[in-house]
Amino acid sequence: MNAESLESQMEMLARDAREASRILAASDTETRNHVLTTAASLIRQRAGSILEANAEDVEQAKQHRNEAFVDRLALNDDRIESLSVELEHIAELPDCVGQISDTHIRPNGLKIGRMRVPIGVIAMVYEARPGVTVEAGGLCVKSGNAVILRGGTESVRSNSELAGCLQDALEQSDLPTTGAQLVPVVDRSAIDALLKMDRWIDMIIPRGGTELIQRVQANTHIPILKHLHGVCHVYIDDAADRERAVQIAVNAKTQRYGVCNAMETLLISQSRAQELLPELGIIYAEHGVELRGCPQTCQILPQTKLAAEEDWSEEYLSPVLAVHVVEGLDAAIAHIARYGSQHTDAIITEDEQAAQRFVREVDSSSVMVNASTRFADGFEYGLGAEIGISTDKLHARGPVGLEGLTSQKFVVYGDGQIRT
Amino acid sequence: MNAESLESQMEMLARDAREASRILAASDTETRNHVLTTAASLIRQRAGSILEANAEDVEQAKQHRNEAFVDRLALNDDRIESLSVELEHIAELPDCVGQISDTHIRPNGLKIGRMRVPIGVIAMVYEARPGVTVEAGGLCVKSGNAVILRGGTESVRSNSELAGCLQDALEQSDLPTTGAQLVPVVDRSAIDALLKMDRWIDMIIPRGGTELIQRVQANTHIPILKHLHGVCHVYIDDAADRERAVQIAVNAKTQRYGVCNAMETLLISQSRAQELLPELGIIYAEHGVELRGCPQTCQILPQTKLAAEEDWSEEYLSPVLAVHVVEGLDAAIAHIARYGSQHTDAIITEDEQAAQRFVREVDSSSVMVNASTRFADGFEYGLGAEIGISTDKLHARGPVGLEGLTSQKFVVYGDGQIRT
Repeated sequence: MNAESLESQMEMLARDAREASRILAASDTETRNHVLTTAASLIRQRAGSILEANAEDVEQAKQHRNEAFVDRLALNDDRIESLSVELEHIAELPDCVGQISDTHIRPNGLKIGRMRVPIGVIAMVYEARPGVTVEAGGLCVKSGNAVILRGGTESVRSNSELAGCLQDALEQSDLPTTGAQLVPVVDRSAIDALLKMDRWIDMIIPRGGTELIQRVQANTHIPILKHLHGVCHVYIDDAADRERAVQIAVNAKTQRYGVCNAMETLLISQSRAQELLPELGIIYAEHGVELRGCPQTCQILPQTKLAAEEDWSEEYLSPVLAVHVVEGLDAAIAHIARYGSQHTDAIITEDEQAAQRFVREVDSSSVMVNASTRFADGFEYGLGAEIGISTDKLHARGPVGLEGLTSQKFVVYGDGQIRT
Repeated sequence: MNAESLESQMEMLARDAREASRILAASDTETRNHVLTTAASLIRQRAGSILEANAEDVEQAKQHRNEAFVDRLALNDDRIESLSVELEHIAELPDCVGQISDTHIRPNGLKIGRMRVPIGVIAMVYEARPGVTVEAGGLCVKSGNAVILRGGTESVRSNSELAGCLQDALEQSDLPTTGAQLVPVVDRSAIDALLKMDRWIDMIIPRGGTELIQRVQANTHIPILKHLHGVCHVYIDDAADRERAVQIAVNAKTQRYGVCNAMETLLISQSRAQELLPELGIIYAEHGVELRGCPQTCQILPQTKLAAEEDWSEEYLSPVLAVHVVEGLDAAIAHIARYGSQHTDAIITEDEQAAQRFVREVDSSSVMVNASTRFADGFEYGLGAEIGISTDKLHARGPVGLEGLTSQKFVVYGDGQIRT
């Protein structure tokens, strides 16, 4: 397809989404929940054909993709059931759309409040996992948005089956099927055409590696909800409780490696390094975690490899940990400001003042006291759902649930007020 | 100056701002208020030299700029006094930084809340008015942000004097003067260099015409708080109160013409057109407002010029008004969706259901019932201040006060929780 006709095709799709978004925004909670429970049933009913389509995707992907990729792509009965359950769970979440807050009456009698409203049209650009089609589609519909889904080319057959369930559910709920559209063009240039539709698309959420996010960012003026890397720190303060320090430092690194909220650098105050590093060194070794230390760390744990400058800003996502002995709280805060990624950072301390300074001065989307960084997650925070973790500062920061898919407008009720 | 050295100069400036932002974010309310009251005093003390610098700016601008431009640029004793008063007013506003909301305790004992924090580094790019230097600088400092000020080249001497007051006030409050920097390069390409500093600048607020905003948007990946045009509507519904309808329709258009929240298109239900348009026509004529109507309007008011398609999306900012007779509520909502700019729209009705549908379905930053669109303003809404009116949907929408210059991070307090 040539660029021009691709662009006009994407424009039509985006315009249709805009039209549908108005109808979705005006629909009631019950109708939108009906879409979700209907889609859940359809996915169960069509499990056979979904698995068939997925098997074809998997077959093709195996030829040029690695095992981890194929694993993310593959569906099975359990995964399909959990997608249905997830939609039913989203249907049960409270609906924030239409809620009015901050209501106050002005001296002239105007009643002013803020109403929570859908954002409009949201484009999801993601990679292998076909489950995103259902999760993201479900969250967008729940929050009254129209969604444009652009999954990885390798999962096109699976996505098509799953998006079909959402669309049929929209239809069975008397809502336009254009409320959840799958980009039908496999061609990579379809993304570029989509990114130009800033007139019709209100927000883009890329889900995938840094490369995907940067590519999206470089090619669009549509606002993006970015989930970049997590270079997370745990700082063991002078006043840390010994047992808590060890448990959290171990959990934050070893409970799971390939996740953005895992600790990548351990900072420890010099007053506690001699006491705690040997014990931690033994536990990390038992877990097969490779340490890369500052000179002081290497002195205390002589087997440790000396860290290079790059190690302090590295997101390993693997059993590797950078360790830095610091002079104290100030040095820890400064280190995080310099090398961190403003994702999630924790302090272990019994000193309330130190905790308050850390919480106030560390500029990250989640700041924790005496807890493992691994808790930075929409479900753990009780948001009920998670469309991503935002590393942006505007709009939504940290784990993003349904509220992050909405906006607030001012609503003003008068009885004839005019301005003089 | 060549492009490379300009870029490195802007990078240094932006890095310094980032450093300063950390210190400002950690400062207490009292200190930041002290900056504002001190700056107010300094502006009063230095009124003489500020007016002198301004006179030079005005002299030069007169040679190639029109009267309206020169008027926006010119300061006098009253304007200088009102800038000082404004800073003192900002000092008195409540400080939202550090406030924690939405606190809840999870089943595992984690206490989770959201803390309001400064955004970090904010760049203001504006045109003639030197007052913006003080207003925007003051609001950024109050909210704990570092600010980079880039005013119009024509007001460079005035801005330099005013920014000097802010900087000296920062110094006298033991805060870094880099908390409020004025871009020292008059060269227009300084903006382009600044727009590349997405590593150090968190938000850009352009204040000026559409051309300025579009130029900023086309050249940066830094999030922008945009204030685009206002094509505002008043819709007179079937169930409108006659007196209210006339008063609001007149006020929204004629109270002030050159402002974004003035009505540009009047929509009137066909059931009320025959009754109300003749009366409105007379009043508008008295105010010298030129009407451009749909065919039905022209039938009722035969002197009316027939509107062209462009008129429906035009922001006149002058005594011109487009008038469209519509079938009813649905047609009014559809017209606004098609031609509006999502700024401010009002319905005049006594029918609560119609009001609720309008409020719910019109996707604008301010939606009003029985009130003049002219109230869409941070001060009228009781925000206490206004850095702009956002026509964006993400982050802040509508009039933006201090809260719009802040973000929220998650704060998590535990007592040793680890994830299993």
